[in-house]
Amino acid sequence: MTDVTRQLARFVVASRWTELPREVRHEAKRALLNWLGCALGGCNDPAVDTALAGLREFAGPPQATVLGRRERLDILNAALVNAIGSNVLDFDDTHLRTVIHPTVPVAAAITALAEHVPVTGAQFLHAFVLGVEAECRIGLAVSPEHYNAGWHITSTCGVFGAAVACGKLLKLDEQQMTWALGIAATQAAGLTAVHGSMSKCFNMGHAARNGLTAALLAQKGFTSSERGIEAPRGFAHVLSPRCDLYAVVDALGHRWELLENAYKPYPCGIVGHPIIDGCLELRSAHGIAPDTIARIELRVHPLVMELMGNPVPRTGLEAKLSVHHCAAAAFVFGEVGVKEFTDACANDPAVVALRTRVVPTVDAAMAADAADVVVALKDGKKQHAFVPHALGSLERPLTDTDLENKFRALAAWGFSTCNAYDVIELLWSFDNINDAAALARTTVPSAATAV
Amino acid sequence: MTDVTRQLARFVVASRWTELPREVRHEAKRALLNWLGCALGGCNDPAVDTALAGLREFAGPPQATVLGRRERLDILNAALVNAIGSNVLDFDDTHLRTVIHPTVPVAAAITALAEHVPVTGAQFLHAFVLGVEAECRIGLAVSPEHYNAGWHITSTCGVFGAAVACGKLLKLDEQQMTWALGIAATQAAGLTAVHGSMSKCFNMGHAARNGLTAALLAQKGFTSSERGIEAPRGFAHVLSPRCDLYAVVDALGHRWELLENAYKPYPCGIVGHPIIDGCLELRSAHGIAPDTIARIELRVHPLVMELMGNPVPRTGLEAKLSVHHCAAAAFVFGEVGVKEFTDACANDPAVVALRTRVVPTVDAAMAADAADVVVALKDGKKQHAFVPHALGSLERPLTDTDLENKFRALAAWGFSTCNAYDVIELLWSFDNINDAAALARTTVPSAATAV
Repeated sequence: MTDVTRQLARFVVASRWTELPREVRHEAKRALLNWLGCALGGCNDPAVDTALAGLREFAGPPQATVLGRRERLDILNAALVNAIGSNVLDFDDTHLRTVIHPTVPVAAAITALAEHVPVTGAQFLHAFVLGVEAECRIGLAVSPEHYNAGWHITSTCGVFGAAVACGKLLKLDEQQMTWALGIAATQAAGLTAVHGSMSKCFNMGHAARNGLTAALLAQKGFTSSERGIEAPRGFAHVLSPRCDLYAVVDALGHRWELLENAYKPYPCGIVGHPIIDGCLELRSAHGIAPDTIARIELRVHPLVMELMGNPVPRTGLEAKLSVHHCAAAAFVFGEVGVKEFTDACANDPAVVALRTRVVPTVDAAMAADAADVVVALKDGKKQHAFVPHALGSLERPLTDTDLENKFRALAAWGFSTCNAYDVIELLWSFDNINDAAALARTTVPSAATAV
Repeated sequence: MTDVTRQLARFVVASRWTELPREVRHEAKRALLNWLGCALGGCNDPAVDTALAGLREFAGPPQATVLGRRERLDILNAALVNAIGSNVLDFDDTHLRTVIHPTVPVAAAITALAEHVPVTGAQFLHAFVLGVEAECRIGLAVSPEHYNAGWHITSTCGVFGAAVACGKLLKLDEQQMTWALGIAATQAAGLTAVHGSMSKCFNMGHAARNGLTAALLAQKGFTSSERGIEAPRGFAHVLSPRCDLYAVVDALGHRWELLENAYKPYPCGIVGHPIIDGCLELRSAHGIAPDTIARIELRVHPLVMELMGNPVPRTGLEAKLSVHHCAAAAFVFGEVGVKEFTDACANDPAVVALRTRVVPTVDAAMAADAADVVVALKDGKKQHAFVPHALGSLERPLTDTDLENKFRALAAWGFSTCNAYDVIELLWSFDNINDAAALARTTVPSAATAV
């Protein structure tokens, strides 16, 4: 495989929107709806405020929207800041085979670029699909060793996705697209060591900005390696102890990675999701009040407890990795959204009390995306729910309506004053829109309503 | 070594200019003189023009000078472009133990920053020394495995150097400096796969810009890992198959890596330098004209031929890796500067003719920085020169006068209209200058003389 970079570039340049399967085109809208909700939910997070405080005075002309806010930045800084904001809640999508969160770096980059060059809705969706395809396939080529080695794969592969998507919008030719991939490769970075700090979502930011930079430079003839992915000292060999370069080009145009994308119903560790499903189901079916509960018994795969075994989370961030918290919050509030993973909720007396009555048991025979939940009530009754696949898994995906509801909740959470119904309507018909810049513009608070 | 990041941050924050040894302070001026010459020599290179073409319309306020030119950019883009321009001629300095070219990423970043925040000459020199110290020590911790794996070490380590130097100028406290190192770590990137293209010097550019970004973000409280260098999934373990973290902090403040820095007298592969020395010496001592030469016999270490064995270079870039070209050009022109590595010179009939009479022999007993040169003349006479150490090696460093001459030649090569004597004078007394922004300003062509 000595020319996968060029093969990928050739495919991207030649690809036509009308040749994409209908379900891929629709999935692009779903992914963007999910992403834009995350962006609005996170748009006033301290990580966004701090990044703006650090970089605003060096930013260029007001070319692009900071999503959900009134600031405008040059397109490179907008891509950076919007990637931070749309990842900060840990509520964005997941390409399960690579653990890449594919939409953030690609969508943040092209949403900014589409405010600067003329782009139709269909071109935007098309570029998005191609960017996701590139980053996920490059991710597959180095998975799982690359992530296991400590690379934040959404960042290291996201820079390629952003470069490809922006390159498509800039109408790069094959040579330019090949260089753009090389310029992306030589910027690929991002360590999982920074997880737990603001730098985690900054990794998404530099991937988006640097991918856009790669496309802009390549457009002007800035040269690079023509084998950025596969060269002996290129991306795959240097950043992974093992790689399967064939994965980059295998069945290109026939298999679409976007169809392997999953959306979270709850903003916490994904292996905790089936537990929440079970608890919400029991609460709703039997009208169970928290103070009637004697014990919540969970039976789960060992990995679940390894990742989410914290019985006494003290912060919202820690609560995201606590099955005890997830189960208790589900019974106390009847919903598990962003609010249920705030510091306040982690220390809510009702939740703290119920958490002590959560009793997890590991069972290697359980699937990692399944859960068995038994609620023992104080009156001696027991209620039982078995969840074979979590909501949001590929076997049980969020419906379009689920995504709409998630979007509305996130927009409201982020104090966004945009009309959620308008945005939803815009996205479902985005392939018929003449100016893709409308997407960013609909998120801007009006002067009268701005917080 | 579980806290080298913090130890390094603490050292940098506490360091005082007056505590630096006199020879370190002087070496900082030498390094900057050498660097600024390279920047002026390269300021109109196509790589600089192309980077500007790609990024200018997205750049921020005109805060900082593009060295040797009339454009001004925001400090982040200025750092990026000036790092490209000062590396493009391959004439910058080398920290021999790591093969890091230490000055480019650090100086490009602080030269831009010093036009935006008040910085004295002494503060500038001090920050520069600390940045070089950080990047070279981090480089030592992962050498030689890191470079051998395919990482462009000046880029991957340069981002730390730029972050530290900018952080010092921004007066970061220990916590902020620790975060700045973490933000640098998660941006560390740059592949040797892109060598031979414009992206090689772009690696320097993103190191400079990203290091400055790290310092600016940390200043505002943008959080990161506090163990960016040494964490299990931090820089050293992820980007190198082996690391010696002790090298980061060993004898910190007692041993200064800047004193291990070497400057090139000729802009070509460093192992070819003693050959050029020998040829120039023979030409000068015996007044040898090219057409009187029957044969130039070179005896060199095998590595020399491995790296520079191309007998028929077709371009200036190829000529940089050809001992045949180096020897021939030395005899034809009596000097070997940037002009002797242009495409025109690679195809100069006199050079091409003499190149065919260069006869290299490998000898494992020779040192890699030595050369034995014998010129057999057509009249049967032979002249012999043995060069035990190349000019520019640590054993035989360029003098201050050599560096001044190199600066003047480079400034003239880059069509710079700045007064080289003024710049040289400014640098030798830079520790007494109140406003370090003067350094960049002196390189700006006046309106009347701009090309």
